[in-house]
Amino acid sequence: MKHLLDIKALSASDIHALFEQARQFKNTPIKQSQKLHQGRSAMALFFENSTRTLTSFQLACQRLGIDITALNIEHSSTKKGETLRDTLLTLNAMQTDLFIVRHSQNNIQQSMAEWLNHQTSIINAGDGTNQHPTQGLLDLYTIWQHKKAFENLKVAIIGDLKHSRVANSLMDGLTTLNVGEIKLYAPEALIPESRKTWLADDMKSCIQDADVVVMLRIQKERFTAEDPISIENWHQHYGLNQERLQWAKEDAIVMHPGPINRGIEIADEVADGLQSVILEQVKNGVLMRQALIHQLLS
Amino acid sequence: MKHLLDIKALSASDIHALFEQARQFKNTPIKQSQKLHQGRSAMALFFENSTRTLTSFQLACQRLGIDITALNIEHSSTKKGETLRDTLLTLNAMQTDLFIVRHSQNNIQQSMAEWLNHQTSIINAGDGTNQHPTQGLLDLYTIWQHKKAFENLKVAIIGDLKHSRVANSLMDGLTTLNVGEIKLYAPEALIPESRKTWLADDMKSCIQDADVVVMLRIQKERFTAEDPISIENWHQHYGLNQERLQWAKEDAIVMHPGPINRGIEIADEVADGLQSVILEQVKNGVLMRQALIHQLLS
Amino acid sequence: MKHLLDIKALSASDIHALFEQARQFKNTPIKQSQKLHQGRSAMALFFENSTRTLTSFQLACQRLGIDITALNIEHSSTKKGETLRDTLLTLNAMQTDLFIVRHSQNNIQQSMAEWLNHQTSIINAGDGTNQHPTQGLLDLYTIWQHKKAFENLKVAIIGDLKHSRVANSLMDGLTTLNVGEIKLYAPEALIPESRKTWLADDMKSCIQDADVVVMLRIQKERFTAEDPISIENWHQHYGLNQERLQWAKEDAIVMHPGPINRGIEIADEVADGLQSVILEQVKNGVLMRQALIHQLLS
Repeated sequence: MKHLLDIKALSASDIHALFEQARQFKNTPIKQSQKLHQGRSAMALFFENSTRTLTSFQLACQRLGIDITALNIEHSSTKKGETLRDTLLTLNAMQTDLFIVRHSQNNIQQSMAEWLNHQTSIINAGDGTNQHPTQGLLDLYTIWQHKKAFENLKVAIIGDLKHSRVANSLMDGLTTLNVGEIKLYAPEALIPESRKTWLADDMKSCIQDADVVVMLRIQKERFTAEDPISIENWHQHYGLNQERLQWAKEDAIVMHPGPINRGIEIADEVADGLQSVILEQVKNGVLMRQALIHQLLS
Repeated sequence: MKHLLDIKALSASDIHALFEQARQFKNTPIKQSQKLHQGRSAMALFFENSTRTLTSFQLACQRLGIDITALNIEHSSTKKGETLRDTLLTLNAMQTDLFIVRHSQNNIQQSMAEWLNHQTSIINAGDGTNQHPTQGLLDLYTIWQHKKAFENLKVAIIGDLKHSRVANSLMDGLTTLNVGEIKLYAPEALIPESRKTWLADDMKSCIQDADVVVMLRIQKERFTAEDPISIENWHQHYGLNQERLQWAKEDAIVMHPGPINRGIEIADEVADGLQSVILEQVKNGVLMRQALIHQLLS
Repeated sequence: MKHLLDIKALSASDIHALFEQARQFKNTPIKQSQKLHQGRSAMALFFENSTRTLTSFQLACQRLGIDITALNIEHSSTKKGETLRDTLLTLNAMQTDLFIVRHSQNNIQQSMAEWLNHQTSIINAGDGTNQHPTQGLLDLYTIWQHKKAFENLKVAIIGDLKHSRVANSLMDGLTTLNVGEIKLYAPEALIPESRKTWLADDMKSCIQDADVVVMLRIQKERFTAEDPISIENWHQHYGLNQERLQWAKEDAIVMHPGPINRGIEIADEVADGLQSVILEQVKNGVLMRQALIHQLLS
């Protein structure tokens, strides 16, 4: 494994190896894991802002002894008219071991890997509406911690699936792991064509007997006055509250990639409830990124 | 000691223990102190900008071997509608050892400590007009270096006391250390109700025989056209020059938390004079923060 | 050597010592070089933005085990009315070992060194239109790697020489190293008075038989409607393409400080061609800065 560009590039056994590695790091003192990659360096190129994901990668690197430099993209040469390829080759010439890249353009990391002749590792930290594979991996790891096997699980995913790279990576990963059933629920316009066979008729049939309920973040800025569902009515039609959660299995877990819009896609009682594993996802994010980076650089 | 939220939470012996610790770090090679907390991490959450204080905390952490990540608050999730509590719990889930927080809202760090169930340490790096306890501690330490005992000291503090969290922490700390006398001078509107008994009749009686003269930063943006004293006239009425400094004891020290407005609250001849300990305060800031963080994490 | 303010302060043997040091670091594992300066700290004060140069200095420091803090100048105290001298003395009081400073004002680092009484090292990372000595050094090192001796070389430099601190440092360094010949080409208005004796009559005579061809970045924002040459016509008159490069020696190398404007000062075929050493310059930049910092702090 040289890069992680798309979760579909990982086999079931690749994913399970990462689970094991993350579990191992969970029990490793940081002082010890910091010795693993001393002298290595990484560069974070976040052309879209994200404090949460960037911080998670920064901590993952620090815990492996890797010096990570987050570039101030707003002042970077690409803003001075330099091509993205030239910016990348320039930074690469400084001899870094890893690029962590978030960009609004789908598949750009694939191009970047080619520009580098695959000589430096790239992790896709989110590309447009396409993939966010490390989020997918940490979601899978969180499910695995709670449910162990995937074959008999029902996973319900609710929200704006059309623009969600998080959901894409999760669904692709679940497919690789041969999950029992995926059900989706959202206004039909927010379901990508290729996933429409998984669309449930109503919220109840989506959630019914689910083992895992994943709520997606609603991006308020996408709503326009013409939308059939307003942001005000979203919660009523597509929000998860405690009453609706009872349709799921009693031991179902509730997930959300964050940051959450309380009272919109998820009610406080659920976000803060006993079935919520939202903060575990965050914790697992650092461990999974540590595991991934360790494997890429080993 | 789990947090430092308010300097009033520290006893005289707590403060003296920090003095001793800071003095010890002054004589410890950084290469050695860096071994003390390797593997630990801290997060700086500065909702108000401050390069000076942030840099001081960054160096203090580095000199203890702690990885510190300064969050880019302008791009953080709280700006995307996430509650501050959710932002904090998310970052905490990444398993950091210490939060260093500056915020415009009084007492917010107290709430944050409760949200975390007191499981992660918090240092208040300034909250609204309330407290700035590490600045208070470094000021006390600087006085202690020069004057040894507090019981017989007279401390004069001049400037906008109403909006000064720096002055609050200093006055509270001096009270804990049983200082001889505190005298204040400023337009009456800029003296908080609870401190009015310390207000001097004029600048001379404030400074007269003082051992320590503390000048506060005037925040120009607070002045409006209706103010009885304009920014232009401030120096004439409340500024410290060499002539006025002679009212104090011959060996009096002059302090200022910085950044200084030369020619407004303080004349060049005083800021750069032999009695000025302004740069010592800065130096002591790193040492005192090192001492504090060391105690919180030990 | 305490500072590096101007490349003219270095003798030929100083420069050769840096070449040797850089070559040595090229073959030193980072894990090993990181032990050299552990416990040291540096501060980057970039009053002009530059991701490329800042990142290069950050990596150079990291590879020597130095903690480097890049100040967020936009939020710094100089923006709150503090004088630059006070900002510098304040940061210096925090006991750093090295300042790396970029500023739009010519010679400001010289003043800074005096304000510090030469007690802390300063590296000039670019001052106005005057000097950019570390870029000059990395350019010289790159030439040395390819050509070994300077005495018989012809170096052609083409572009806006008037505003180029990069070209100034390079020309001064070449002079110190007793280079065979320097030839310049640009509209006469863009050649500084003191360098006019080197101005070639046309592009061909500038490039003819050159061993090294250095193209400078055109700063588009400098062009006005009244300029005799428009940005659109620049390439036609002053740009380097493969055909023109053939005027130079067969083994000539092509250099550019970056970021490049493709199709303006340099054609794609040249920038990406076999004679281009542009990315080597970037790689050498980290090594040369490592070498320099190592010498300053040793």
